[in-house]
Amino acid sequence: MSDKLIIFDTTLRDGEQSPGASMTRDEKLRIARQLERLRVDVIEAGFAASSNGDFEAVKTIADHIKDSTVCSLARANDRDISRAAEALAGANRARIHTFIATSPLHMEKKLRMSPDQVFEQAKLAVRFARNLCGDIEFSPEDGYRSEPDFCAGCEAVIAEGATTINIPDTVGYAIPELYGEFIRNLRERVPNSDKAIWSVHCHNDLGMAVANSLAGVKIGGARQIECTINGLGERAGNCALEEVVMAIRTRRDHFGLEVGIDTTQIMPASRMVSQTTGFVVQPNKAVVGANAFAHASGIHQDGVLKARDTYEIMRAEDVGWAANKIVLGKLSGRNAFKQRLQELGIELESEGEINAAFTRFKDLADRKSEIFDEDIIALVSDESVTAVKEHFRLISLAQRSETGERPQASVTLAIGDAEHSVHSEGNGPVDASLRAIESVVQSGAEMLLYSVNAITSGSTESQGEVTVRLQHGGRVVNGVGADPDIVVASAKAYLSALNKLHSNTERVAAQG
Amino acid sequence: MSDKLIIFDTTLRDGEQSPGASMTRDEKLRIARQLERLRVDVIEAGFAASSNGDFEAVKTIADHIKDSTVCSLARANDRDISRAAEALAGANRARIHTFIATSPLHMEKKLRMSPDQVFEQAKLAVRFARNLCGDIEFSPEDGYRSEPDFCAGCEAVIAEGATTINIPDTVGYAIPELYGEFIRNLRERVPNSDKAIWSVHCHNDLGMAVANSLAGVKIGGARQIECTINGLGERAGNCALEEVVMAIRTRRDHFGLEVGIDTTQIMPASRMVSQTTGFVVQPNKAVVGANAFAHASGIHQDGVLKARDTYEIMRAEDVGWAANKIVLGKLSGRNAFKQRLQELGIELESEGEINAAFTRFKDLADRKSEIFDEDIIALVSDESVTAVKEHFRLISLAQRSETGERPQASVTLAIGDAEHSVHSEGNGPVDASLRAIESVVQSGAEMLLYSVNAITSGSTESQGEVTVRLQHGGRVVNGVGADPDIVVASAKAYLSALNKLHSNTERVAAQG
Repeated sequence: MSDKLIIFDTTLRDGEQSPGASMTRDEKLRIARQLERLRVDVIEAGFAASSNGDFEAVKTIADHIKDSTVCSLARANDRDISRAAEALAGANRARIHTFIATSPLHMEKKLRMSPDQVFEQAKLAVRFARNLCGDIEFSPEDGYRSEPDFCAGCEAVIAEGATTINIPDTVGYAIPELYGEFIRNLRERVPNSDKAIWSVHCHNDLGMAVANSLAGVKIGGARQIECTINGLGERAGNCALEEVVMAIRTRRDHFGLEVGIDTTQIMPASRMVSQTTGFVVQPNKAVVGANAFAHASGIHQDGVLKARDTYEIMRAEDVGWAANKIVLGKLSGRNAFKQRLQELGIELESEGEINAAFTRFKDLADRKSEIFDEDIIALVSDESVTAVKEHFRLISLAQRSETGERPQASVTLAIGDAEHSVHSEGNGPVDASLRAIESVVQSGAEMLLYSVNAITSGSTESQGEVTVRLQHGGRVVNGVGADPDIVVASAKAYLSALNKLHSNTERVAAQG
Repeated sequence: MSDKLIIFDTTLRDGEQSPGASMTRDEKLRIARQLERLRVDVIEAGFAASSNGDFEAVKTIADHIKDSTVCSLARANDRDISRAAEALAGANRARIHTFIATSPLHMEKKLRMSPDQVFEQAKLAVRFARNLCGDIEFSPEDGYRSEPDFCAGCEAVIAEGATTINIPDTVGYAIPELYGEFIRNLRERVPNSDKAIWSVHCHNDLGMAVANSLAGVKIGGARQIECTINGLGERAGNCALEEVVMAIRTRRDHFGLEVGIDTTQIMPASRMVSQTTGFVVQPNKAVVGANAFAHASGIHQDGVLKARDTYEIMRAEDVGWAANKIVLGKLSGRNAFKQRLQELGIELESEGEINAAFTRFKDLADRKSEIFDEDIIALVSDESVTAVKEHFRLISLAQRSETGERPQASVTLAIGDAEHSVHSEGNGPVDASLRAIESVVQSGAEMLLYSVNAITSGSTESQGEVTVRLQHGGRVVNGVGADPDIVVASAKAYLSALNKLHSNTERVAAQG
């Protein structure tokens, strides 16, 4: 059996399905480029048929990514598969990933179909897809809770030309040894199993996604792992790419497998996904948490200094931990800025966008002497830079608070082409500012989350990056805003979330 | 073999060793009471010999906790063990946990001792401890990387009276099946292994702490799991209590074991540990993350509403997820407030402290109409409430910022008995306020982290809870401050961290 393990990243599909993690096309392209630098084998870019926005995102990624295979999810029907093929037309290497649920519970309650109907549909879908694309993955959704008789279904889809069979533990119910044996059993019982690569897709509801994936590989003989950066994904998330890759590397003695990942790109990928989605990484998160390597966060301890391997099994620099580097300052010119954007893999669409970003950069450099890579990423994430004209825009803000007095804020904002100025009080300056905005916009949205992180550590002059999560009419959106002034960053984040609520994108549910 | 699984919580010992997670005696007692409500079997309260502060914390917990066994860590020497016994004297049920490293790497590089010397010292330590306490746990540190010949050492310590033998995977290097077999092998080869309970202690560096612990139980026959709330702990942390307990419960079909935990106390425990240490829990954290149960964070989705078990294997209410309840308001009196403190398990030392807390409560209720449990916890966590007089105290703060102008802050603070007023500019109002404080205090501390979370969600009038992590002279401390005004909360958090740096506690390194 091959000793090459395929890393299939689904940050942009299963990760993005996490409530609040939705990303714009440009954000997805930026992350896809980082995944390419990370050298993942397959990038699942989205679910083309689920919305026009997702179609555009998959198409853009397919058109720009050269080294990784680009994949789109599709339900097991001709329309979804056609849309996926259409979005992937420009890809160097394309894959269509089609799925249908096979567990008794899902077939009965969600699909309301008999097992025979389900398997027949799966067969027809793979046959249809195979005529449009040479690389077809099939997933029996909730596969791990399916009856063993779905072996016949697997045999049939392989016969129709599926090249990868993925067995998802959709609800995160598996235990390593049981999941490993389940996959081994399937591979032994499906007569033509050697004609396909078997894949694992695990969720982390019981904290075992990584161990389950590895058991699927070691015990079960799978040769593809589906995973996401930071373990992003619905509920407790998916198997974390950084953990599973470092386990394979660190315990090569046990697994004896090769992965193509450039691990030094792990930290930049982690930071980018966290910054883009507003999903924080907890300090005690393996590999990418601030405390994962004690010495990397500026903390030095005697024990480690004496003999590093007494307490460390990995090296921080191997996963891309490095001190923040000052990259630009107020004297940096447009060319230096443009070059740094390129080095960071950020491609702005037009000269107009580069000019807008450069103007914002100069404005920031006037207020903050040291500009880090993270600042640049935050700056281009700011929607005022992108060509898309937002409906709600902050023009100016003034606020004050004093012990014993009620905090106040005055905000001027543009809604479409009209300008509004409004004043409000609140419990604090942030509350007063958001109340002022809300009094004009009257969105009625409920705030689910408010959090702030300093973009770079090491000084109190860092920018604050604020994430605001709003819910309205059944939709959940995250808005992110960055500014050296935390109140301004909060107003920007709130308006960013309101803009997302305002641009109505419809989506259908995908499998996990 | 018994079907009872012992849950040994080490949040207050191994968890607290995480850089920045150190807690005061009162905070540790509050968490210990919550662990008792959670019905953990053993609470490792600290490492009595490591500092006077830790001795006091262990002693206080031993004096107050009735239902759980209270344990102190101790190196394998008479002084440490005597101190542990002294601290535990008031406990209903006490355990001494002594350790010494047994891996070749640790013996050679850290201890500079031969294996024979190490085993002899372990034997003498257990013999000494056994005369002071009936319940003795022994840990061979870095046990999983030790040579098989340390079986003889295990046999000897059991013969001396050790009742629990714990095998730590100190560096998080294990793989489930290998770790499980390692423990089974030990139990088979140590002649008197059935005279002790075997225990697992796993770290999460490769994301497999939970799976490794469960393999130690299922394959290896261990009957104690050492774990922490939120997986707090050095580097990537320890096995997460909430995950391992819910795995045992949800997969009772596989494990067939009983745990005594009241799982509805999991969320209150998680929130308390996160709020006390300032270590955030990421949204995609299993069991206790904001997204772990989609519908618990106010998010409703079609699929789940149709048939909940299609996507959910646990119920949110079983782990204590519940909507925030408004518990008190500005009309609530002192008795209602005092009663709610008791219901939350918060015991203030004196009437003076209750009065101080009540004054702060009324002040908060004037500014914020709905007071939640989280607000009360934040309020009593505020150091201005505790009897300990802080060296640095905020008296008043005024700040303002306006687009196009440089943000300004004026701060009045007390240092000891002297009052200082100072004005400063900054990049933002938070920066200006902290610069003002720093210009008086001149700590020279480096800021490693700055983050803000809303204490309760659902409205913009939430209090902001700010965590500031400072490093100075090799020490790392977290300061936490809460206030409806985010700038005031930031100043409080900064002063809280400065107070912790000011109160010099020395500690020795413990095992993990």
